[in-house]
Amino acid sequence: MPLLVMKFGGTSVADLDRIQNAAAKVQREVERGYDVIVIVSAMSGKTNELVGWVEQTSPLYDAREYDAVVASGENVTAGLMALRLQEMGVPARSWQGWQVPINTTSAHSAARFVSIPRENIDAKFAEGMKVAVVAGFQGLSAEGRITTLGRGGSDTTAVAFAAAFGAERCDIYTDVDGVYTTDPRISSKARKLEKIAFEEMLELASLGAKVLQTRSVELAMRYNVRLRVLSSFEDTDENSGTLVCGEDEIMESKVVSGVAYSRDEAKITLFTIEDRPGVAQAIFGPLSDAGVNVDMIVQNISEKDYDEAHSGAVTDMTFSCPINQVARAKKAMEDAMAAGLINYDDLIIDTEVAKVSVVGIGMRSHAGVAATMFKALAAENINIKVISTSEIKISVLIDRKYMELAVQALHDAFELEKAA
Amino acid sequence: MPLLVMKFGGTSVADLDRIQNAAAKVQREVERGYDVIVIVSAMSGKTNELVGWVEQTSPLYDAREYDAVVASGENVTAGLMALRLQEMGVPARSWQGWQVPINTTSAHSAARFVSIPRENIDAKFAEGMKVAVVAGFQGLSAEGRITTLGRGGSDTTAVAFAAAFGAERCDIYTDVDGVYTTDPRISSKARKLEKIAFEEMLELASLGAKVLQTRSVELAMRYNVRLRVLSSFEDTDENSGTLVCGEDEIMESKVVSGVAYSRDEAKITLFTIEDRPGVAQAIFGPLSDAGVNVDMIVQNISEKDYDEAHSGAVTDMTFSCPINQVARAKKAMEDAMAAGLINYDDLIIDTEVAKVSVVGIGMRSHAGVAATMFKALAAENINIKVISTSEIKISVLIDRKYMELAVQALHDAFELEKAA
Repeated sequence: MPLLVMKFGGTSVADLDRIQNAAAKVQREVERGYDVIVIVSAMSGKTNELVGWVEQTSPLYDAREYDAVVASGENVTAGLMALRLQEMGVPARSWQGWQVPINTTSAHSAARFVSIPRENIDAKFAEGMKVAVVAGFQGLSAEGRITTLGRGGSDTTAVAFAAAFGAERCDIYTDVDGVYTTDPRISSKARKLEKIAFEEMLELASLGAKVLQTRSVELAMRYNVRLRVLSSFEDTDENSGTLVCGEDEIMESKVVSGVAYSRDEAKITLFTIEDRPGVAQAIFGPLSDAGVNVDMIVQNISEKDYDEAHSGAVTDMTFSCPINQVARAKKAMEDAMAAGLINYDDLIIDTEVAKVSVVGIGMRSHAGVAATMFKALAAENINIKVISTSEIKISVLIDRKYMELAVQALHDAFELEKAA
Repeated sequence: MPLLVMKFGGTSVADLDRIQNAAAKVQREVERGYDVIVIVSAMSGKTNELVGWVEQTSPLYDAREYDAVVASGENVTAGLMALRLQEMGVPARSWQGWQVPINTTSAHSAARFVSIPRENIDAKFAEGMKVAVVAGFQGLSAEGRITTLGRGGSDTTAVAFAAAFGAERCDIYTDVDGVYTTDPRISSKARKLEKIAFEEMLELASLGAKVLQTRSVELAMRYNVRLRVLSSFEDTDENSGTLVCGEDEIMESKVVSGVAYSRDEAKITLFTIEDRPGVAQAIFGPLSDAGVNVDMIVQNISEKDYDEAHSGAVTDMTFSCPINQVARAKKAMEDAMAAGLINYDDLIIDTEVAKVSVVGIGMRSHAGVAATMFKALAAENINIKVISTSEIKISVLIDRKYMELAVQALHDAFELEKAA
């Protein structure tokens, strides 16, 4: 029997009506001849309520107890979904993480999968069960405690089950109807993509397109799980949404698939630091220890004159990080200076920047993408502050006030409104 | 290390403040040198919310899924209580039913204990844990599914743990401060009892005094677990509340310990039925099959004249049942008549009755209790409709409008306002 994994997020199971709506989508796949594993999140709002109670009870909480409390939200949805399916005449039962068991590491609130044995669920499929409803986001540690995977963990649960059970596809039902060439709120020309490669989706996810959790895409890529993103709130069929898949399934693609952005960036520049081996480590080691997620890094030759206070060559170092980590980053640098690890003349913070990126696997075999990008931005008089490139992505930091304009200009320049 | 079981019901853990208050009571016992097992209910209202969702989702629900959903309420409280205790510096952890494991039968929503192995919890006590917080009301079936014990199951969980771990005492914290000689809302002279025997508590519980669940008292009696009922909302010490214990601990007791009542009773009389062997079975078999909880039964010689239609001796049969089961009882009798199982001339229903009872282990060795009771009722001109007695209880059915008056008169007659 072919098997499908279907995942419903919090807004898709927010109340009993929506659970019924989701159950109807599951029933349709059963009628098409599939065995189905359904992964559910907590009813929206429930996880936040539980987290709030934990944090109020114990600000520096024991993560094992946090996990035990917070995982209960998914258990409720799993039971209700199984009941709804039974009510529709579909043989279904719920599974909590420890019942499968979903074996994970003991890193509470950030656990990783160790194994998902198929025996228990397969035995029930063999007995005639058509749908296994599994509580997402949770697992079981070797010590017998409940673990959680961290926020967005239900997507990752879905992909892990699709891999473990050799599912034909993993359908992620959410509140958007697919992956777009860019944010439709910013460009009215944004177009829904029929297919997108894992690598592209990863870049888009990490750039702030919130459709899928990065980790779930990584896992899907590793196990070649075909992921489909589609809407819970529309009638859907086998062609709905966007398929996230391997490059081999994408016959012809455009050079650039999408334009992404990240609004809340900050740029920090250390002026006139020693240009010597080990200086990068002396800067980014303390930042990492302080929990600062450094994104782009650029090292320039300093424009300042050679400074008598320094004994050798000097340089400037610029990096970006999320805007809410600026204070932490500044303190880490000042502490490193005080400890004699680094020495800089000045530290300048720019919190008025945003990141705009173009992403596409086609870039690998096409030159000229960067030139087209820079030309389009120049035509709008947008100054580029920092550039960073990867094999399938070019990102720039620009003044935040030009962000929407830049996204629209790039969407036009690469003609993303047209299908490939 | 001496061990104590402490149980907190739904109103005692209704919100984070109350959980903190309960945790403070636990901390005090730890400071007195006890290891503690805490049994918690769901925060009040939560179980009803979950039950509502289940019933709306599937009116004829699968009890296995019902149990999986409903048990989550206790899991949340257990985690929060453990966190609160940790925050106070008390080494604590939560245990869900399957983690202990609390092994039960597979009778979902009405499961019974099979075994509570001590190994896992004892191992943690040996490592320095001072408090095990256990989710009440739930267990694990041999099939690996979550079970629940039915309403009030948290009291029973507490007693079962006290028995399994040889606890010095099982303290049931609730919203009343003990067991009274009668309902203080009915008699202002009601007095809190310092001690009461298991048998008396059982009679009082089954008569409608809602302090403890009948099943938990039965279990406590069987394993000789000393139970203490006391208030969550008052400062309590080792002498607070009421101790429910074996008779041997009660040195001197009054002949009557309490006056109980049950308001919503109905009386059904079948007139002129055949007085032959097997007729009682022909009546009460169908009633039992229909789920009618028959309480008192009285058989009279019929006052009606010998009826030509009957070939032998005739009698009248009267029984009582909860008022909301009257329709079911009537239908069962009519069906039995139609099926030729029984034959009666008339069926009279009286829904305006209440039951009042005096209870006391001292009755066993004292004559004259019934006489005192009937005299007190007669002095108030209260007519007795049915009488039923057991070794430690005398119950009467009377007109409901006299119920309060009867309770007060009996409380006075047996001088229950005075300590023994």
